[in-house]
Amino acid sequence: MQTEIINIGDELLIGQVINTNASWMSEQLNLAGFPVHRVTIIPDDPQHILDALKESGQRSELVLLTGGLGPTKDDLTKDTLCKYFRTKLVFDPVTFQTIEKFFKARGFQVTVINRKQAEIPENCIAIPNINGTAPGMWFEQEVPGVEKKHVFVSMPGVPFEMKAMLLNEVIPRLKQYFQPVTVLHHTLLTQGIGESFLSDLLEDWETHLPVNLHLAYLPQPGIVRLRLTGQGDDESRLQKQMDEEISKLKLLIPDYIFGEDNTTLEAVVGKLLKEKGSTLATAESCTGGYIAHLVTSIPGSSEYYKGSIIAYSNDIKVKELGVNEKTILENGAVSEEVVKQMAGNVRTRFDSDYSIAVSGIAGPDGGTKDKPVGLTWIAIAGPSGVQAGKYFFGDNRERNIRRAALQALNLLRKHILGS
Amino acid sequence: MQTEIINIGDELLIGQVINTNASWMSEQLNLAGFPVHRVTIIPDDPQHILDALKESGQRSELVLLTGGLGPTKDDLTKDTLCKYFRTKLVFDPVTFQTIEKFFKARGFQVTVINRKQAEIPENCIAIPNINGTAPGMWFEQEVPGVEKKHVFVSMPGVPFEMKAMLLNEVIPRLKQYFQPVTVLHHTLLTQGIGESFLSDLLEDWETHLPVNLHLAYLPQPGIVRLRLTGQGDDESRLQKQMDEEISKLKLLIPDYIFGEDNTTLEAVVGKLLKEKGSTLATAESCTGGYIAHLVTSIPGSSEYYKGSIIAYSNDIKVKELGVNEKTILENGAVSEEVVKQMAGNVRTRFDSDYSIAVSGIAGPDGGTKDKPVGLTWIAIAGPSGVQAGKYFFGDNRERNIRRAALQALNLLRKHILGS
Repeated sequence: MQTEIINIGDELLIGQVINTNASWMSEQLNLAGFPVHRVTIIPDDPQHILDALKESGQRSELVLLTGGLGPTKDDLTKDTLCKYFRTKLVFDPVTFQTIEKFFKARGFQVTVINRKQAEIPENCIAIPNINGTAPGMWFEQEVPGVEKKHVFVSMPGVPFEMKAMLLNEVIPRLKQYFQPVTVLHHTLLTQGIGESFLSDLLEDWETHLPVNLHLAYLPQPGIVRLRLTGQGDDESRLQKQMDEEISKLKLLIPDYIFGEDNTTLEAVVGKLLKEKGSTLATAESCTGGYIAHLVTSIPGSSEYYKGSIIAYSNDIKVKELGVNEKTILENGAVSEEVVKQMAGNVRTRFDSDYSIAVSGIAGPDGGTKDKPVGLTWIAIAGPSGVQAGKYFFGDNRERNIRRAALQALNLLRKHILGS
Repeated sequence: MQTEIINIGDELLIGQVINTNASWMSEQLNLAGFPVHRVTIIPDDPQHILDALKESGQRSELVLLTGGLGPTKDDLTKDTLCKYFRTKLVFDPVTFQTIEKFFKARGFQVTVINRKQAEIPENCIAIPNINGTAPGMWFEQEVPGVEKKHVFVSMPGVPFEMKAMLLNEVIPRLKQYFQPVTVLHHTLLTQGIGESFLSDLLEDWETHLPVNLHLAYLPQPGIVRLRLTGQGDDESRLQKQMDEEISKLKLLIPDYIFGEDNTTLEAVVGKLLKEKGSTLATAESCTGGYIAHLVTSIPGSSEYYKGSIIAYSNDIKVKELGVNEKTILENGAVSEEVVKQMAGNVRTRFDSDYSIAVSGIAGPDGGTKDKPVGLTWIAIAGPSGVQAGKYFFGDNRERNIRRAALQALNLLRKHILGS
């Protein structure tokens, strides 16, 4: 079956409000077994609403609408729904009681405008709104040549009203009405390899995936998420099938996977340090505090993070990090020797178990033929010694900073795990 | 004319990724004089893509597509575009050169998969992608009974690739092709005051604005942007009208405005330091490197930024920043005395003209009745001495870090300007 979402609201079409309703609804509907095939945003305009209802009603068994139901915009969507379903508004006493109760609980009388909210199209079933006054509306529509009537559900656009209504009222009714297929997702998070190189490594495995499983590549600067999606009738069988393929996938790219599903590299590293009771210090040059920022964005990071010295000039590298002046003169600030001294010395000074040091050329200026923009040295120091690696990231300052920071955190993760 | 956006991507339909592209694109297209009337999200599926192309092409003069252009297997958009426009893929040598250059700069050879990215539909014009390998594509389509051909533009879905392409390549071409009404924008950037308080101060001025001018409040954590938009036929008259109102607006809230249009507080502060030939050092506790990250996100910041000590534990505050241990014991780490010592000492140690120090409780843990989550002390030190201020930001860790960092940068800006 096909499901779609229609979000009504001018504010969504001028960039003032990001349409977070659609992604939240899609996630919940997917989890409940109603994969969403289309999302449409339209303005608060009767003709646009009518067009969208006509198109979606022909295409999809299930259409969920949000927005256009507040006390001020009320008439617009409800009148258009009446026009589409060739019906009229009638006063619903049960809905009115709910509205009256809602206002009384807050010490208010029901206004004329709010009384109008109890008027709903004659052919719909009202769905209670526990967090507001505009009821939801459930419509069923005969479609020529189709046995089961199509369903339209209209909900308020205010996120906390819509969310409670979808979870507590709408999804249970949908499950009863339709018999949804099972959809499962599993995401692996990778760092240090680009989308096309990953694709080369996975090509053979991907071609042999069962037809009901599908892999998607979701790249961000420095990170590629791999999402495996499966559909099936039998949940436990599907789960087993997914687990098998995920196991195979993990064996193909063990060096690049740092986590699963909704986590971040900084959270994974933080958890690892916490579990080991270990501490971390950092010494940053080109990343300019971004590693520290990622590490400290995790609540509770003060348990394992001691701090950082950001040495954005050579004299600070010498004075505050104890880097040998001669080493800088002979090798340059962006070199294996310097980054190793930075890592070793900050670890000693901050008395931490582990340390990270980064020195590179973030750009856009400062590159030379031998040391181009994007060149970055990263060192990790720990109880077992210091190791360093050389990387070429690219020519964009913002992404070089991000890529270097993520690469450094992943090196630390591997160093701690002893791989 | 009617404009619509089609975002292609399974990830947008399972709730894993919020469709921020649509709101950003809507904003930019609106600003350029192309109001958006519809946004549609569809899966990576040829039939859905084909249906959406057919519907939108009938309805709208301008259709912008994103997504489905990466080098991997889940990308079907180009084949579907060929089917829709009844054309075939051809190898584009210019695009290939760009891809080759992109890979060479990173020390890689072009793979077979990436070579395929230089194949584009025969009837389109390739649009360069400065941040990636997939080119954009500009199509024009004859529509029966319509004089001007409809335009379709296909762009990558990766936000930073799409953004650069839309701003630098697509919008200038659209302005040349369609000649939209003149829309002018002027944005003032404020820090340190919330949206509702600003609105109170501006109410009277706003009510008396000419009907063709409109003010929008665009809040972000710590910053409110005020965007004045004007529409008109005569550009120079409109410009004069806008300038007059902006002058009045500036007089109403002089203390809160730190810049105009597309700048940032970190860029404004950087420019000021550079102009004065002055240097900066920072000492961060609760902001955990975020101030350093903001400062060093500006190209050329090594000219004025010397570095930072991030002291995420009390012993680092004592050992590395020379804060008096007794002061911490008597006043706590989040106090006027500690933050003043941090600012003064880092300025001396790093031999900088100015310094910033921050100490606060970012949350979610660590708050007490006397010192709740969100309490933050900020100090600025300069040639004329040290000043400190106390702030209460809120209960959200991420926003507290951002608000504290922006407040600190604005305090430094005012300190340097001597206000």
